[in-house]
Amino acid sequence: MSTKAIGIDFGGTSVKSAIVEDGRITQRGNPVDTRKHTADGTLFDAIFEAIAMLRLSHPDVRGVGMGLPGFVDTDRGIVHGLSNVPGWDNVPMLGMLRERTGLPCAIENDANAMAFAEFTHGAAQGAKNAICITLGTGVGGGLILDGRLYRGSRYAAGELGHSSVDLYGPRGVYGTPGDLEVYVGNRQIGERASRLYAAAQQNRPPEQCTPKDLEKLALAGDRIAIALWDSLGNEIGAALTNAIWILNPDTVIIGGGVAAAGDLLFAPIRRSIRERTSTLFSEQLRVLPAKLGNDAGIIGCAALALEAGK
Amino acid sequence: MSTKAIGIDFGGTSVKSAIVEDGRITQRGNPVDTRKHTADGTLFDAIFEAIAMLRLSHPDVRGVGMGLPGFVDTDRGIVHGLSNVPGWDNVPMLGMLRERTGLPCAIENDANAMAFAEFTHGAAQGAKNAICITLGTGVGGGLILDGRLYRGSRYAAGELGHSSVDLYGPRGVYGTPGDLEVYVGNRQIGERASRLYAAAQQNRPPEQCTPKDLEKLALAGDRIAIALWDSLGNEIGAALTNAIWILNPDTVIIGGGVAAAGDLLFAPIRRSIRERTSTLFSEQLRVLPAKLGNDAGIIGCAALALEAGK
Repeated sequence: MSTKAIGIDFGGTSVKSAIVEDGRITQRGNPVDTRKHTADGTLFDAIFEAIAMLRLSHPDVRGVGMGLPGFVDTDRGIVHGLSNVPGWDNVPMLGMLRERTGLPCAIENDANAMAFAEFTHGAAQGAKNAICITLGTGVGGGLILDGRLYRGSRYAAGELGHSSVDLYGPRGVYGTPGDLEVYVGNRQIGERASRLYAAAQQNRPPEQCTPKDLEKLALAGDRIAIALWDSLGNEIGAALTNAIWILNPDTVIIGGGVAAAGDLLFAPIRRSIRERTSTLFSEQLRVLPAKLGNDAGIIGCAALALEAGK
Repeated sequence: MSTKAIGIDFGGTSVKSAIVEDGRITQRGNPVDTRKHTADGTLFDAIFEAIAMLRLSHPDVRGVGMGLPGFVDTDRGIVHGLSNVPGWDNVPMLGMLRERTGLPCAIENDANAMAFAEFTHGAAQGAKNAICITLGTGVGGGLILDGRLYRGSRYAAGELGHSSVDLYGPRGVYGTPGDLEVYVGNRQIGERASRLYAAAQQNRPPEQCTPKDLEKLALAGDRIAIALWDSLGNEIGAALTNAIWILNPDTVIIGGGVAAAGDLLFAPIRRSIRERTSTLFSEQLRVLPAKLGNDAGIIGCAALALEAGK
């Protein structure tokens, strides 16, 4: 039987789709620009057209899965607060997908879909309990617990980005003092770096302090960049350690643009975790980079669609 | 069919046992003093004698469950590091219980057993996802996730007492900076209070600053005691909030001696959680005192024994 499914990643500015077979993307659909559409339904039409095109050349697809930002009620099939499309709220997306495709369908929060992809086909394969985080503009997270995707009571679990590392630290977007994103979000990294350079009498504006810039600087021996990666790893490790004391996982997966810095970031993260936990929690713990990159959402949604069809 | 089971609480200084029926203790067994026994086996004999006595008057018991401190490998039935009985490590307790009783048996970490008791017969009834903590000498915790006891990869999940609220705070027993126990363990509360009184030119040694003393003082209007309960609630709330961002539970249960202070502690805990989370996480969240008190361990173990016999 075919193991083909269509995965859809409903992103900030575009909706990407692809045929996924055994966890690999074999054909990509036409991307749909969300900014060219409003809530009047033409966006749906464009998405379903992309799906239909993929099905023309792959009539044996067995399901369609869609990952979306915001809070996705997987039991009722509703998406709340799809903030990147004005006017959309409480969209009964699962029913719409099923009706228009006639196939088994799944919808899921995008960070959860990524975690599920890493679990089924990526770096978290074989895990029983895994914490997956992505470091980018914000910090997203998803949890695999006892071998299953864990969603929480209101489908909002895994928000490590808002867990706090400092009781009296600066406040994050939800008012949480010392919220991890305040330290390690992309923009915040740029601003921190720029301030550190300024303090050392060097002028380097935040926009020249992207994670990529700071990686190059550190690899060239720049001490400020090296020290900053060390701080970032320490802070990310502290937030992960809180989750580790709570969940006692066997696997931690770290993805997203910031994680591309590799050992510059992973070495201090691993050290931070080791210093903050007992050996019972750390000695058999794998802390690994994510494998599936930007395709994780699509791959995870396709896998969830196949599960929905079982 | 009988719903009677024997629950056993293997505590620091004594092993308590009882007949439990529908979540209520109907008869208590003879407590066994652990300090009178060594690892030579006489402690086992004394425990099994207490079990046999209970079974004499209740021949219809359907199982035996035992809760123990330390790390309990429920899959292999082994207890690691039973620190209160010198010389005991890697004890195959489940097999011994089964062999000597001929009944379905269960062993469990004591904090997990308490959480399971509150879930099946106490304050967390009806929860889908619950965080249960006990505040005493240390801070213990157990998790109910997706309606089941969650144990973690090495049976050590739920250690909120070692999660950190301050990246650069004082170190706890495992070296974790800002470990919650450093702020709210019984002994630490006494020392903090004593220091606050000293700073206000009042002599009150730590041993006169037990949670009970501080409760009385606060209820009588003592400002130092009131402020301290406020700080404790703020800190406990901060640690809980980290777990709430990660797990998105519907229920938080707080038990143990310190929790007996009631609203003095629960009001600032609830405020701390509300201030640190988004409404999506807090508006449908119940934060409740534990119901089953010191009997929770026994009741939970009896319930787990009945599950094992299914």
